[in-house]
Amino acid sequence: MKRSDVDAVEAANTAIYDAFETGDIDLMGALWLDDGSVDDIDEVTCVHPGWAPVGGRGAVLRSWSMIMANTAYIQFFLTDVQVQVSGDIAVVTCGENILTGMGGAGETGDADDDESAPGFAGGRAVATNIFRRTGDGWRLWVHHASPVLTSPAEDG
Amino acid sequence: MKRSDVDAVEAANTAIYDAFETGDIDLMGALWLDDGSVDDIDEVTCVHPGWAPVGGRGAVLRSWSMIMANTAYIQFFLTDVQVQVSGDIAVVTCGENILTGMGGAGETGDADDDESAPGFAGGRAVATNIFRRTGDGWRLWVHHASPVLTSPAEDG
Repeated sequence: MKRSDVDAVEAANTAIYDAFETGDIDLMGALWLDDGSVDDIDEVTCVHPGWAPVGGRGAVLRSWSMIMANTAYIQFFLTDVQVQVSGDIAVVTCGENILTGMGGAGETGDADDDESAPGFAGGRAVATNIFRRTGDGWRLWVHHASPVLTSPAEDG
Repeated sequence: MKRSDVDAVEAANTAIYDAFETGDIDLMGALWLDDGSVDDIDEVTCVHPGWAPVGGRGAVLRSWSMIMANTAYIQFFLTDVQVQVSGDIAVVTCGENILTGMGGAGETGDADDDESAPGFAGGRAVATNIFRRTGDGWRLWVHHASPVLTSPAEDG
């Protein structure tokens, strides 16, 4: 694997999470492959955590728009990012450590709580992202994210 | 995509679930790629539903042995099997509709229950399976399975 390929794939992978964090559906759209742009690819596929697969570029981007519209705040800390490149296809596996904001004063706030801190919630997921090399750079072909339900102590 | 490639990949995909259903760890091992057998692949990766990723052939097969040892009965009904082949790499997305046996008389059985029916549980998951073409046929490089937590009505 060429170091430059690995770096480019890792940058494309990071960009997906940047697009989600900033709610930038245009950037998200630019990072996904166009259905039919590559002869041997039927359509893009996206599995959000806990969801059934969403297939086809239009449906995938609609799902992201809906998720972004329902996310007040989200931040990703990626861990164990593993990039493997084989020709024009790259596979990335990474841990998604997620901090989400619940918005507002938080459901745990009460009248005596002067700080009125917004509520935050943490989560842990794992993603497999498959990229395809195109004339415009690496583009996402398949995204599969799923919740990690075991405790860290149970891993491995 | 050549029809013969698609058929061969689909057969390899089905074989994985056959191996799990029959608890055949030798067959499961034969279906997974050998780490390092292909220059541009570092190691195989496996994500069981709810788990963090398991990396490397040895750890992956140990995880399957453990799961098989703890599964009295399991049957898969695969749905929406989508196969995409690009050169020497194939990506399969499929729904896993799962019937598992809890074994014994079942926790819901009581003294008046003459049938003592074993308990069964259903489940729904989705898998992304990435295969690699080798001299010995298509071998599994990445398996990522995750629970589907939404109801069918929410899909799509």
